[in-house]
Amino acid sequence: MKLYDYTMAPNPRRVRIFLAEKGIEIEKVQVDIPAGENLAPAFRAINPRGLLPTLVLDDGTVIDESVAICLYFESLQPDPPLIGTDAKTRAVVASAQRHMEFDGLQAVAEAFRNSNPTFANRSISGSEGVPAVPGLVERGRAAAERFYASLNDTLADSEFVAGDAYSIADITALCVVDFAKWIQLRAGDEHPRIKRWYAAVSSRPSASA
Amino acid sequence: MKLYDYTMAPNPRRVRIFLAEKGIEIEKVQVDIPAGENLAPAFRAINPRGLLPTLVLDDGTVIDESVAICLYFESLQPDPPLIGTDAKTRAVVASAQRHMEFDGLQAVAEAFRNSNPTFANRSISGSEGVPAVPGLVERGRAAAERFYASLNDTLADSEFVAGDAYSIADITALCVVDFAKWIQLRAGDEHPRIKRWYAAVSSRPSASA
Repeated sequence: MKLYDYTMAPNPRRVRIFLAEKGIEIEKVQVDIPAGENLAPAFRAINPRGLLPTLVLDDGTVIDESVAICLYFESLQPDPPLIGTDAKTRAVVASAQRHMEFDGLQAVAEAFRNSNPTFANRSISGSEGVPAVPGLVERGRAAAERFYASLNDTLADSEFVAGDAYSIADITALCVVDFAKWIQLRAGDEHPRIKRWYAAVSSRPSASA
Repeated sequence: MKLYDYTMAPNPRRVRIFLAEKGIEIEKVQVDIPAGENLAPAFRAINPRGLLPTLVLDDGTVIDESVAICLYFESLQPDPPLIGTDAKTRAVVASAQRHMEFDGLQAVAEAFRNSNPTFANRSISGSEGVPAVPGLVERGRAAAERFYASLNDTLADSEFVAGDAYSIADITALCVVDFAKWIQLRAGDEHPRIKRWYAAVSSRPSASA
């Protein structure tokens, strides 16, 4: 089993934190996204989508998408549970995880990719020759600000993003908040609950994975 | 239990097809997206994100996001299995489902929302006052065309999108292909495998759910 990874990128980090929470160690291969290694033929031969993280099983099966890779490891090793434990908590965690992904991660990525010169022709992850769309910088930034307000509200009701247990939703959210620093967006005084939660989740040993 | 639904929209349809495949019937409430009912205070009081589909359990728990709702019903009634049956097939299905969602559904939605006058100030689902981004019409259309080429390749290896069993990945893909008609995009002679697959999945009774 081999995990294609890039240390600096938020999506591979989601999987690394998930594995660290479970105490699982696997072989990792670095693929340099800013240098375009993920778009080169050698990596396309492994994953035609050109996206990281990508997990290759010993039988050659290729699994990409962070959430799908995490699901695989949850099946292999259910403890500690990170995606819920029964019908309701699994659905609540999946729902919250997707809020973090669609409302948070995609917003920050939109602002970041369309303003960073490295991605001037890579507006869509995994594609080449797709020019940056200037209007997305402002749209993404504003959506990310709405996300912060919403996340602060969510954390009024519970210790963690999807209830009283740490889950994959917290992992995605932590990666969003750290990624948002790249667009100079940080939790402010109006987000006291995000600050309280961030202090807790970012101090777990897994956060440095 | 109550499902907030809108018959014409692709995301609620994903859940309706999933439920039809399982033979589950539940109460549905229509929320008119083009008329903006999903953004009005009455619906925001149910789901602050203003998105459909939204499932409300008898205990008041709110679960939105199509995939999270489907996961809930898979837990309640595992047969017929639609998200895989073991560690590997569950991960493969989740990965493929996300390919359909990120590469297909998001591409078509991007082209559709940013060109349709109804959504002139609703470029992001669930938000108001977010103007359409003209550059996304072409970007989304081109991404959708790449998706068709990729889906046609995927179907060379298997009868269905995620292998030899019908799954949630086929449901998402079917909703993409029908949604794409709204941007005048259809499988052509260069996509024979999509045509073969589409004939099979769209003739299942669930397709009319």
